[in-house]
Amino acid sequence: MISLRRAWPVRWDRVRVADPVFAPRRQVLRERGIGYQWDVLNDRVAGVPRSHAVANFRIAAGEMQGSFYGMVFQDSDLYKWLEAAAYLLATEPAPQLAEWVATAVDLVVRAQQPDGYLDTYFQVAEPGQRWTNLRDQHELYCAGHLIEAAVAHHLATGRPELLTVARRLADHIARRFGPGPDQRRGYPGHPEIELALVRLYRVTGERSYLDLARYFVDERGRRPLYFDVEAHERGEAPGHRHFDDSYYQVHAPFRQQRTIEGHAVRALYLLSGALDVAMETDDPELLQVCRRLLDNAVERRMYVTGGVGSSAWGERFTIDYDLPNDRAYTETCAAIALVFAMHRLLQVEPDRRYGDVMERALYNGVLGGLSLDGTHFFYVNPLEVWPEVASARHDTRHVLVQRQGWFDCACCPPNLARLLASIGQYVYATDEASLYVHLYVAGEAEAEVGGVPVHLTQATRYPWEGTVDLTLRPASPARWTLALRIPGWAREARLAVNGEPVDPAAVLDRGYARLTRVWHHGDRVRLELLMPVERIQAHPRVRADAGRVAVQRGPIVYCLEEVDNGPNLAALMLPRDGRLRPEWRPDLLGGVVVITAEGRRRREGPSNELYRPVADGDDAEAVTLTFVPYATWANRQPGEMLVWVGEA
Amino acid sequence: MISLRRAWPVRWDRVRVADPVFAPRRQVLRERGIGYQWDVLNDRVAGVPRSHAVANFRIAAGEMQGSFYGMVFQDSDLYKWLEAAAYLLATEPAPQLAEWVATAVDLVVRAQQPDGYLDTYFQVAEPGQRWTNLRDQHELYCAGHLIEAAVAHHLATGRPELLTVARRLADHIARRFGPGPDQRRGYPGHPEIELALVRLYRVTGERSYLDLARYFVDERGRRPLYFDVEAHERGEAPGHRHFDDSYYQVHAPFRQQRTIEGHAVRALYLLSGALDVAMETDDPELLQVCRRLLDNAVERRMYVTGGVGSSAWGERFTIDYDLPNDRAYTETCAAIALVFAMHRLLQVEPDRRYGDVMERALYNGVLGGLSLDGTHFFYVNPLEVWPEVASARHDTRHVLVQRQGWFDCACCPPNLARLLASIGQYVYATDEASLYVHLYVAGEAEAEVGGVPVHLTQATRYPWEGTVDLTLRPASPARWTLALRIPGWAREARLAVNGEPVDPAAVLDRGYARLTRVWHHGDRVRLELLMPVERIQAHPRVRADAGRVAVQRGPIVYCLEEVDNGPNLAALMLPRDGRLRPEWRPDLLGGVVVITAEGRRRREGPSNELYRPVADGDDAEAVTLTFVPYATWANRQPGEMLVWVGEA
Repeated sequence: MISLRRAWPVRWDRVRVADPVFAPRRQVLRERGIGYQWDVLNDRVAGVPRSHAVANFRIAAGEMQGSFYGMVFQDSDLYKWLEAAAYLLATEPAPQLAEWVATAVDLVVRAQQPDGYLDTYFQVAEPGQRWTNLRDQHELYCAGHLIEAAVAHHLATGRPELLTVARRLADHIARRFGPGPDQRRGYPGHPEIELALVRLYRVTGERSYLDLARYFVDERGRRPLYFDVEAHERGEAPGHRHFDDSYYQVHAPFRQQRTIEGHAVRALYLLSGALDVAMETDDPELLQVCRRLLDNAVERRMYVTGGVGSSAWGERFTIDYDLPNDRAYTETCAAIALVFAMHRLLQVEPDRRYGDVMERALYNGVLGGLSLDGTHFFYVNPLEVWPEVASARHDTRHVLVQRQGWFDCACCPPNLARLLASIGQYVYATDEASLYVHLYVAGEAEAEVGGVPVHLTQATRYPWEGTVDLTLRPASPARWTLALRIPGWAREARLAVNGEPVDPAAVLDRGYARLTRVWHHGDRVRLELLMPVERIQAHPRVRADAGRVAVQRGPIVYCLEEVDNGPNLAALMLPRDGRLRPEWRPDLLGGVVVITAEGRRRREGPSNELYRPVADGDDAEAVTLTFVPYATWANRQPGEMLVWVGEA
Repeated sequence: MISLRRAWPVRWDRVRVADPVFAPRRQVLRERGIGYQWDVLNDRVAGVPRSHAVANFRIAAGEMQGSFYGMVFQDSDLYKWLEAAAYLLATEPAPQLAEWVATAVDLVVRAQQPDGYLDTYFQVAEPGQRWTNLRDQHELYCAGHLIEAAVAHHLATGRPELLTVARRLADHIARRFGPGPDQRRGYPGHPEIELALVRLYRVTGERSYLDLARYFVDERGRRPLYFDVEAHERGEAPGHRHFDDSYYQVHAPFRQQRTIEGHAVRALYLLSGALDVAMETDDPELLQVCRRLLDNAVERRMYVTGGVGSSAWGERFTIDYDLPNDRAYTETCAAIALVFAMHRLLQVEPDRRYGDVMERALYNGVLGGLSLDGTHFFYVNPLEVWPEVASARHDTRHVLVQRQGWFDCACCPPNLARLLASIGQYVYATDEASLYVHLYVAGEAEAEVGGVPVHLTQATRYPWEGTVDLTLRPASPARWTLALRIPGWAREARLAVNGEPVDPAAVLDRGYARLTRVWHHGDRVRLELLMPVERIQAHPRVRADAGRVAVQRGPIVYCLEEVDNGPNLAALMLPRDGRLRPEWRPDLLGGVVVITAEGRRRREGPSNELYRPVADGDDAEAVTLTFVPYATWANRQPGEMLVWVGEA
């Protein structure tokens, strides 16, 4: 049997990023953001919502008096922070961070109960009620994040303490839940533990973790519904539930689901875990289910920024092509989860379509969640903001116009941290005879292809310029394939090996240009991706974008901001034939390419009339439009923002 | 002192309507709708939400066992039905209707308590709690509707019973509330009684009713806020309140309010009552306040259909230019309330601007609430409906795609009934020396100008054609002014008296063409309003309508329906230069003028790609667009609907 897995990511600690976008963000995280988050978790930051995450562990460990405070899944904030910190520790020395991590790990160790159980909410606030409400109470979700942190910590430091905690909890869970006669047929209300268990399996080789992950995927949605069984046992009245089955992805057994539904982060964490299970258990049917649901997400339910989840209510997917821009929920964590899922599809099947989506989400929907100063965050990422109405209307009250220092529900900040800290792992992958370049990110990497170590450097100003120079330094000459993603946005690409042109079309396989040859130390590959500014249109069924275009250059989606273009951005129009000029602005927003265009602004007439006949002649004036990268909006004065601009 | 009132409406029972729009609707109401509503109120209609309104009165009268059922203001459904029935009785004999009315009146009489109090909710469900929560409990609102019904019943039948009930309740209220030392400084949470008390004053001459109305207007919003005082007395925790002050129009003392705020029906009933008070008390300051708030409504917060209230949450106004089409609330009752307010402004100051808005609301936002069969109703009237998303999204769950037989909160059906039954009163007005024609509605009227009776006929196919032939038959020749509204939508108008052309511009005063002469029996006036199909644009600050136009002909606003144009109406475009052709279709929707246009439909490409670069060349195909009057949508198969169509 051939494993479904094809291309294994080159690990985060083997890749150094030195590009103009991710590297500065990661640098700010290392120098400032990770410490800021640690301070918040320790309640040492004034003026932000209280975290109490560390205090909850102290109370659970019996070292402090007090009550549990926060969301039922508050523990996961500390776990995700630990995971991020571990990734940072793996690449460069950071003594103070190492001390914080040791402090946190020791605390988690002490908080675990003798039977392996660990969840400070139940230990402190509801002892005796553990495992009675998997639907709502997030114990398995928190366990998943503990496991992920433990795996990262172990790989980064080689130390066993946190991994031991995670294994004891995983064993506790594996005893309790499963298909056996003495087991409960439960599964998590919020998926996450599935992918974590596969990570644990990969590190430990312990098959029971993989089996449990697979069980969680396959039990999901079976009738009778476990959530109803446990609700009945709790004495909960039928119909008490706030959300319908699809919110939890239990509207049908997982393998029978046809469309991606419900809470976007849950759906995408579930799919990531299911893909991991499919790979490790060689299950093409399960892979096919995941592909079907993810195709649905990407072809019909994703914003141009890579954001997903178009409804604030339920933080969820709705129906095909329902993508309103002003009411988009597009949680930062959901864009991150889309990256996770696409990264796994790339492992099974290197296809540029998955890399394109991963890249789209990373540069736009994900990075937009983080301020340039590294300490302010968006939870919600709409594509159109009119500040006055965002606060005046109840149906846009989830839209904030400025990034916040923290949240009562603070899932996004440490999720951003762990993604950025591990960004290197998304760049390359290898299989027995290939090295894949998924992303163009300046820096270097240590990989191994067919047993031969390869050092590789990328020199490029990507995403601001499209030329990428790769230098390969295999430890010994060997024949293998260098596979370069030719992004879907690139209408034209040029390729040369050691100065000799190669026709990319001739070597293209599912969007990857495959250069197969004996590679020698010092071989050079140049890829030139032509990067004109493009007007992007949405599928005609996306009602919200009818008559509008988005501006994109390379992988970067642009937006208009009030600070550059004045108020009432909806009155601006981009003529079909006007030139769009890119310009590198080192002084702006940490250095970005801005786009300027000759546009038009609808004139306000002298009358106050709200409705009047369309007048003959010109009712618009010429203006210069200035577009900035969507991910950098709201780093200057607050104001309106618009991605999809009207065509004139 | 000169009274502010200038033009007194010619009463509903002096006007016969025989036009192609209102007359058939009124006929259906008389023959079917009014009986249908009586059956619903008596719980004799299966398959619709239970009313129990009549039963509540029976229980309150001690003639039936049972509990109160329904909204706290369920009584008002019966009162509004009674008011509508009275108008119908006044114009043509209707023995069965007269019997129902007598039954209802007798029941109301028997339900009143000895001290004059009458509100079946408190009598049956919360005896002892009366007048403890004016903010939420609608006692004064119900009293207002009783008073309106009583005045209409008295004027229609000459009978005293219901008027006596109303006076006893009004006296009861006047003893309890007011500025006196022994009085409570209360006022209604939901305005309505203010305008009702002025009607009662006009019929009875009893000044205390006018004083009470004026008190209610002026006390509103004063500090300390009465709603807080009574809440404190009830022991209610501060902050318990669901809505903010502006929802109730108590964010400032009424005369200091600058913009129209809060619940749209409340705001407009309040303004109607305040205008009545201003007229009767000769209070130009109060008039100015009302004008300011109504200008704000009409110039910045009104849909092109005359609908108002752009937010479902709070059924309310939001901020200037916030007029989303898919999430519009635009309650039918709010459009009716806008008609009430504009009708009162016309009484103070005949100005076509007010008549234009009244006409816009009547033909579009109001009539759209009622099915052609007279027994199905919209509560919410959006300008863009995508049925699948309306049910899938939480923020559009208020949008129904088909009219309903009744509602749990059934304010709209009997409100439509009383408006249609009294439609005649909106057509004409008179002052000492003028006869105003506000609306062009075929039929006849009996008026009196300067003491001289005048019989007048309108012969016209308006609103489908713009030619209006008026014939005047004064009882004796006399010099006075015939003032004809020249609608704002009419770019060109022609006028002739007895065949002699008159230049309308030469006699125009605030949009009314004033023909002053000695009028003789049989004098004929012809008004020709050119009625081309117009593309209407919204003010550039209306973000939701940017790049879109509405199609209007005369006062009729049009829409696209899926049944005529296929699905995905957002993909349709109306080219700037294409012809718009009106066509009379006697077979369609009870007889309407439809508009056809050469339009374009964005093509769906062969790929599934959600986002792609704008292609060179044509990506749209030619299609014929068919527009039908907005008010007639959803009378055939359910489907999408769109008022604002993209410009190509």
